Amino acid sequence: MIQERLKALRTEMSKRGISVYVVPTADFHESEYVGEHFKARKFITGFTGSAGTAVITMDEAGLWTDGRYFVQAAKQLEGTTVKLFKMGEEGVPTVDEYIADTLPQGGCLGFDGRVINGAWGRRLEQISSDKTAAMHVDEDLIDLIWEDRPPLSKAPVMIFDNKYTGEDISDKLAKVRAQMKEKGATLHLMTSLYDISWLLNIRGGDISFVPVVLSYLALSEDECIWFLQEEIVTDELRAYLAKNSITTRPYDDFYEYVKQIGAGQTVLMNTSVVNYRICSSIPQDVKIIDAEDPTVVMKAVKNDTQLENLRNAHLKDAVAMCKFMYWLKNNVGKIPMTEISVSDYLADLRAQQDGFLDLSFATICGYADHGAIVHYSATPESDKELKPQGLLLVDSGGHYLEGTTDITRTFALGPVTDEMKDMFTRVCRSNMCLANAKFKEGCCGLNFDILAREPFWEIGMDYNHGTGHGVGYVLNVHEGPNSFHWKQYPGRTAERVIEAGMVTTDEPGIYLEGKFGIRTENELICRKGEKNEYGQFMYFENLTYVPIDLDAIDPAQMSEREKSYLNEYHASVYEKVSPYLTEDEAKWLKEYTRAI
Amino acid sequence: MIQERLKALRTEMSKRGISVYVVPTADFHESEYVGEHFKARKFITGFTGSAGTAVITMDEAGLWTDGRYFVQAAKQLEGTTVKLFKMGEEGVPTVDEYIADTLPQGGCLGFDGRVINGAWGRRLEQISSDKTAAMHVDEDLIDLIWEDRPPLSKAPVMIFDNKYTGEDISDKLAKVRAQMKEKGATLHLMTSLYDISWLLNIRGGDISFVPVVLSYLALSEDECIWFLQEEIVTDELRAYLAKNSITTRPYDDFYEYVKQIGAGQTVLMNTSVVNYRICSSIPQDVKIIDAEDPTVVMKAVKNDTQLENLRNAHLKDAVAMCKFMYWLKNNVGKIPMTEISVSDYLADLRAQQDGFLDLSFATICGYADHGAIVHYSATPESDKELKPQGLLLVDSGGHYLEGTTDITRTFALGPVTDEMKDMFTRVCRSNMCLANAKFKEGCCGLNFDILAREPFWEIGMDYNHGTGHGVGYVLNVHEGPNSFHWKQYPGRTAERVIEAGMVTTDEPGIYLEGKFGIRTENELICRKGEKNEYGQFMYFENLTYVPIDLDAIDPAQMSEREKSYLNEYHASVYEKVSPYLTEDEAKWLKEYTRAI
Repeated sequence: MIQERLKALRTEMSKRGISVYVVPTADFHESEYVGEHFKARKFITGFTGSAGTAVITMDEAGLWTDGRYFVQAAKQLEGTTVKLFKMGEEGVPTVDEYIADTLPQGGCLGFDGRVINGAWGRRLEQISSDKTAAMHVDEDLIDLIWEDRPPLSKAPVMIFDNKYTGEDISDKLAKVRAQMKEKGATLHLMTSLYDISWLLNIRGGDISFVPVVLSYLALSEDECIWFLQEEIVTDELRAYLAKNSITTRPYDDFYEYVKQIGAGQTVLMNTSVVNYRICSSIPQDVKIIDAEDPTVVMKAVKNDTQLENLRNAHLKDAVAMCKFMYWLKNNVGKIPMTEISVSDYLADLRAQQDGFLDLSFATICGYADHGAIVHYSATPESDKELKPQGLLLVDSGGHYLEGTTDITRTFALGPVTDEMKDMFTRVCRSNMCLANAKFKEGCCGLNFDILAREPFWEIGMDYNHGTGHGVGYVLNVHEGPNSFHWKQYPGRTAERVIEAGMVTTDEPGIYLEGKFGIRTENELICRKGEKNEYGQFMYFENLTYVPIDLDAIDPAQMSEREKSYLNEYHASVYEKVSPYLTEDEAKWLKEYTRAI
Repeated sequence: MIQERLKALRTEMSKRGISVYVVPTADFHESEYVGEHFKARKFITGFTGSAGTAVITMDEAGLWTDGRYFVQAAKQLEGTTVKLFKMGEEGVPTVDEYIADTLPQGGCLGFDGRVINGAWGRRLEQISSDKTAAMHVDEDLIDLIWEDRPPLSKAPVMIFDNKYTGEDISDKLAKVRAQMKEKGATLHLMTSLYDISWLLNIRGGDISFVPVVLSYLALSEDECIWFLQEEIVTDELRAYLAKNSITTRPYDDFYEYVKQIGAGQTVLMNTSVVNYRICSSIPQDVKIIDAEDPTVVMKAVKNDTQLENLRNAHLKDAVAMCKFMYWLKNNVGKIPMTEISVSDYLADLRAQQDGFLDLSFATICGYADHGAIVHYSATPESDKELKPQGLLLVDSGGHYLEGTTDITRTFALGPVTDEMKDMFTRVCRSNMCLANAKFKEGCCGLNFDILAREPFWEIGMDYNHGTGHGVGYVLNVHEGPNSFHWKQYPGRTAERVIEAGMVTTDEPGIYLEGKFGIRTENELICRKGEKNEYGQFMYFENLTYVPIDLDAIDPAQMSEREKSYLNEYHASVYEKVSPYLTEDEAKWLKEYTRAI
């Protein structure tokens, strides 16, 4: 099937004289996850992972993906003729290097200019120019050969009340306009679905688990034009928009709109987010300020209303998680359970909570050796039966009206080995040492990470992912700019400060291939503490209140201080969650939150 | 006297129509400390601190300095008419802002272009251009009015043997030329005295405590021209230079040389180091690569010979320090001692060590409340008598043929308060937690600092300096690019990785104004540890082996792990140092390195 699709694509390439065609995993908005309509790379290669780029020439088809997906991709590419390029491995060319190598002198490079961001597009322009090659970027060749392609999603729009957002749309618009003015911009083009949803106080459902609305936005001093599929605009939404002086235009009209931006304008936009077709459509005599959208930091810093809501949302989530843990630990080995069945059970418990909207991402539920696969997603073929022994890693979360959650717990389903206890205890220490940090205002992600890494680095081990990411508020569960990490991002000018009001996950883990995986993840609010002659001090407030399974803890490995962190945490878990449990559950929770 | 000097300067300014004249603290080489000849800012303001900038207009004279010097500057400026501008305080303009404010439209800005670096000079050009002001930069006005100005230092040059440097000059030249080639440079201009001394394997004495030679260097593929005061070239040095194909030219000729650089050349130089007159003298048609000198990282990464030498130098230094500690603690209150007299006693002990060259900086010896003044320098007026009580902070170091040392210890001279013990123990924990870090290759200064800060941040306290700096090898005791710090440097593009072979100090402290100060400083070598499937691990090797005064330690405050760090450290101190002590001293050391 893939071979036929490649043949069809090459026929279209051939008709147009295209030598190299690029198919990334992207929608028109540089979203992290994409809707079904946009899964073109999956269509043309058969590889279903969330990240990857395909490059097709007349002789070869290649797929680039990262370490998370090497095993899965190798399997899914079997028999497709698509060659796997393992990103980051020695001797493997990058996508750009491969294009530069294979694009013939005087050839033609093709891609859909809407699914490649402006900055990447400029680099591809340079590669083409070096080869005096043409570019074919105004057509989506995959669309021509994909017969039953799902249409663009047109999910309903929800107006997100101020009691949830904590800030009126008019205040948000005024703040963004003030920043535009400060930067000297007369027009701001926004294409990030997260930022548009945040700014307009609306939510949608055009990407699974990410409640956003497919749209573009153009903001000037006196106009705010929202480009969306107008058939989804209800009377209620129309009235809301009118009241806030927001006009609408059809989704696709945005490309015509940008072509007509006047010469006197100064446009603020982030060319690493805005797609190449938009970037190239702006007239040459328009001045561009290429900078981050002001909304990025605004939406990362949660206001007091949001923080209070988040505490409620996390409490509900904790109730669901505690009920799940109680059920799981009391019934494993007695009733049939698999990775998928317990994920479903947990999803049901969340759905019973007031204000629940959706899961915030596809649950990662990995038993035994599956726990060591960092982005494991159980399929009917891989689905493992749970037995009353070993470790189960569950990474899950929900969107509630009051906010989004992301939590990982690893559960001992029965007897665990000393190695498991050692590693589990290290992960717990790692999580707690970061959560209990006191620090000065101005610290960035690079400053903190060593607190979480030390329990592993000291024994020559490590986990191959960041320690934490920002969390969207009923938006993408992964949100910038805040994160905990130790490596510098190449080319980045400055590390981002963890500001008061930002919410970041704290999720160290350890993964022993073929054996087991452990991760313990809480969310932390950064808050202002004491201000004195030494400066403004800061601390983290825990948002997540679910036991860390004492059955896998080795107290002998913990310092008195670490034990007191854990005991204080568990005391809070009991105090907060027990009122919402049955008597049996509460009794059980008391035991699982006992001081050690 | 200062008023007369200002009057004389203003007369010269007036003759030339100069409205604003800038006098920084600098030589022609952007050295951290400067020789006597270059203390022009001290001459014109009377302020003797190591950092500060004077700006003189016809109506006002201002001195800018930082927090270390506010008290001292205020006192020294009394009666001079020079106004103190406290850098970093709210509402205080920066030097550049002040110049932009006071420079009249169509006026004239003056400074000696040799004592302002190229990057700052360009900013001052911009300020002048905004005011359509002229610039007068080819004359040193201070020189005209400073009658008994000390001449340029002409200290003898020492050829630094390969057994100390560990690398032949020819290999160094080849490595720098290879990097020039890689960057596409045909000529490399070097003006940093540290880097020139390192490259040529020579040492001098043109700055107190910094054994460098006033000189410039021009390096091309086939030439290496050293511009220095030729009267100091001995026959031995002449032969050495000839053997290595290095030609010499007079020091001042460098300015003529750069004017004659050919149009086809591409010059590598760092305009943040190279002075403004040199930068402006290069013909317009010469291409400039403005980048860090390749020697900066090369000289920071010590080779195996240097590391082995350093271990020896530090052992000698430790012997001197242990003898000092023994003498101090046994004799205080019995014989007269003052800050200056004990500094001299310690200097004598160092001088008795084989291969001793000089102190590496002016000893900081602060008793009681003087310990809280971070850059305290005892004068005959301030010199305090030591009593058998409270804390004495001693920060000192030496240059030996085998390397440079920098160590701080704080000593209990008798009974100490609970607060002192609490703080002393925290400083010890802070020092040890950083020294014992295990980490992955690629960590930068920002990653580590929290390990040292936590014992203070957790109680809402802090120390207002970095945790550590790189140390030169018989060069400047402060050397980049490695350092431990938590704040990002504004405008810096990337944080510097702590590489294997770099030597960095570990010197947390705490300073309670009017009460006492504590600092404990060791030097650490960054070394490669285990390499396994998780990557390349790294650790620190301690270079400094002197007891941390157990009389001021509160073991109850330390975790088992911290106690074991200290006990292991003290066991090593005894093992390494005791063979070089008298029987009494060794017996005493045994007690002061006992396990707690």
